[in-house]
Amino acid sequence: MNKIKRVAIIGGTHGNELIGIYLVNKFDRQPDLIARSTFQTMALLANPKACAIGKRYIDIDLNRCFLQQDLENPNLSSYESERAKEIYHIFSSKNRDDADLIIDLHTTTSNMGLTFILDSQHPFDLQLATHLTSVYPNFKVLASGTQNQDTSVLRSISKLGFTLEVGPVAQGVLDASLFQQTEALVGTILDWVEAYNQETIAPVENPLTIYQKVQTIDYPRNESGEIQAMIHPQLQFRDYEPLNPGDPMFLTFDGESLFYEGKSTVYPVFINEAAYYEKGISMYLTQKQIVIGNGEWGIGNGELGISNWELVIGN
Amino acid sequence: MNKIKRVAIIGGTHGNELIGIYLVNKFDRQPDLIARSTFQTMALLANPKACAIGKRYIDIDLNRCFLQQDLENPNLSSYESERAKEIYHIFSSKNRDDADLIIDLHTTTSNMGLTFILDSQHPFDLQLATHLTSVYPNFKVLASGTQNQDTSVLRSISKLGFTLEVGPVAQGVLDASLFQQTEALVGTILDWVEAYNQETIAPVENPLTIYQKVQTIDYPRNESGEIQAMIHPQLQFRDYEPLNPGDPMFLTFDGESLFYEGKSTVYPVFINEAAYYEKGISMYLTQKQIVIGNGEWGIGNGELGISNWELVIGN
Repeated sequence: MNKIKRVAIIGGTHGNELIGIYLVNKFDRQPDLIARSTFQTMALLANPKACAIGKRYIDIDLNRCFLQQDLENPNLSSYESERAKEIYHIFSSKNRDDADLIIDLHTTTSNMGLTFILDSQHPFDLQLATHLTSVYPNFKVLASGTQNQDTSVLRSISKLGFTLEVGPVAQGVLDASLFQQTEALVGTILDWVEAYNQETIAPVENPLTIYQKVQTIDYPRNESGEIQAMIHPQLQFRDYEPLNPGDPMFLTFDGESLFYEGKSTVYPVFINEAAYYEKGISMYLTQKQIVIGNGEWGIGNGELGISNWELVIGN
Repeated sequence: MNKIKRVAIIGGTHGNELIGIYLVNKFDRQPDLIARSTFQTMALLANPKACAIGKRYIDIDLNRCFLQQDLENPNLSSYESERAKEIYHIFSSKNRDDADLIIDLHTTTSNMGLTFILDSQHPFDLQLATHLTSVYPNFKVLASGTQNQDTSVLRSISKLGFTLEVGPVAQGVLDASLFQQTEALVGTILDWVEAYNQETIAPVENPLTIYQKVQTIDYPRNESGEIQAMIHPQLQFRDYEPLNPGDPMFLTFDGESLFYEGKSTVYPVFINEAAYYEKGISMYLTQKQIVIGNGEWGIGNGELGISNWELVIGN
């Protein structure tokens, strides 16, 4: 079994998401908090200039700068493009077998509680997420990307990378309760990685619920692109709850309800995330999947962790 | 009795407070909604450049640009300084007796519900606020300034001006429920002004609770000015609730509680407002006052409305 050699805890990928920024500052001052015996840990502020002015980004969204082709493109020279290349050179394992782990700390204005966002559904991450679900009852797992697809997010430069997304909290605000929950979560993850390296983890066989992103939904807009309706009050803050055909989804400025016209139940997340207005996203729609590991370790393709996960419910 | 001649409904004084912006847009499209028979109404976007980029301001906070000396200073040339002068020239009644009314629409990340903020405690505003309190059970009145003191906020260019502050809502987010509540509130205010002009208002004699600002509290900081503690989870979202000596106020990043050391009960508001981090304000402390009108109209100094209000409980 390959061991994890380095863990990077990253905050401030977005300069107005304060919890990650203040946690990284705390870990910088007190490195003992994140030190473990079997791997190196570092805390990094990803976008220091944006953090300094309390804005999401300076030129462009740093968390959309990590496509391989962009990292290799010398013509991209915005502040965030340059910063992405610097971060990539520190951690790059997209093309290597280094067992590095990136934990990218984010906050959201949506009511997503404690969410673990992954792209690749690597067995290592699924096993870790299953453990975290057993420790934190409100912990959710969101599969954002498509298996093996190159993505532009920071976590993607680590094969095992994931995002911790906590909310709801306004941009530019420190929520003490979510700060403490995020810190506890990071500690639990580091302890689990330590146990993983020491091969003292008992493989769990309980099922894991994954919310698989299937679609993004824009706000209703007119021909000029102006927003014509708001998230419906009955949907606001209902992240991860079922949205059934015929349920209210939006409310126009004149008070008319617009309804979900899909054919099957979905589970919206990132509902009314402030930063997604400019991206044309009012919410993600997800489908619920349940997977279960086979309880065996270290087999198959030289990969880390449990290799076979079976989809038991879902599309 | 002087009549109100013009009412201005202002949104987008801060470009990331979406409810006012979208309400002004709606009123622009449907002016009938705000038209009344006895006065002119206009809807105005105060800071269009900041609204276009979804930021609080371009150069400086527009809602701190309305001191008389700044409005008269030709050397101030930031975007917001210029914009303040333009707005002032449209509405200026600081030095005139024009019976104009400015309603400035804001949102806050604090849990302030529907709040009416006034500076001068003019009898007209107190009477209106008393009416609104009877219609909206969660309506609160915050006296922010000192009687007759020149202030830098936009509402101050109208003798009767006030702010409607609604929350909690994150910056950059449209909350449909608060949007509808704000729109209803504006309608109720316009109806009341219409009735006032028509002299069909029965003077109310029920007492009015006013939260009088007495102090601003910064976050605990180190010598470098870095924040050392967050709003305590037990205080978060508890705007307008009593804070007693010995109650927890802040929580350090290491989990230590810091307690309120004042000698008497106060009522914090603007708790953890995102925009106030840069202003060195973690909250306002207020004292509760109860005032009551004398039930007579139009007497005293040629002023509008009930002239004598008596402080029955308070400092």
